[in-house]
Amino acid sequence: MSKSIFYHAGCPVCISAEHDVIDLIGGQNITIIHLGLNKDLINEAEERGVKSVPALVTPSGNVLHINYGASLEDVKG
Amino acid sequence: MSKSIFYHAGCPVCISAEHDVIDLIGGQNITIIHLGLNKDLINEAEERGVKSVPALVTPSGNVLHINYGASLEDVKG
Repeated sequence: MSKSIFYHAGCPVCISAEHDVIDLIGGQNITIIHLGLNKDLINEAEERGVKSVPALVTPSGNVLHINYGASLEDVKG
Repeated sequence: MSKSIFYHAGCPVCISAEHDVIDLIGGQNITIIHLGLNKDLINEAEERGVKSVPALVTPSGNVLHINYGASLEDVKG
């Protein structure tokens, strides 16, 4: 994959981080996934190493956890 | 300021995040500051809202805390 993936859950800190990341990297370079609205994608996110949201998975597969806004456990609710 | 500032303290998670951020944003758009080697800049980082490293301060002044590798208190040591 050549795009980064930004995982979030719609929380205020997620939205703020989303805007920052889009400004920095460019929206065309990022796939945005709202895990709160797409809970079927949570397993996939975990397999990619995401432990909390917001998180950015880079094209090389590294995971940058940003601001520890909420754990995936919270999103699963 | 038009550049982002990446604060770190030389820890492995910091270096890994530094490489990711440079790949994503471009090294020419980032000022890298090693707080472990420049402890006189810790106060300035705190005034900008940095609470842990690695952290990225965006051109708009927002702070993205990445991976909570180490708290600034640890860096002060």
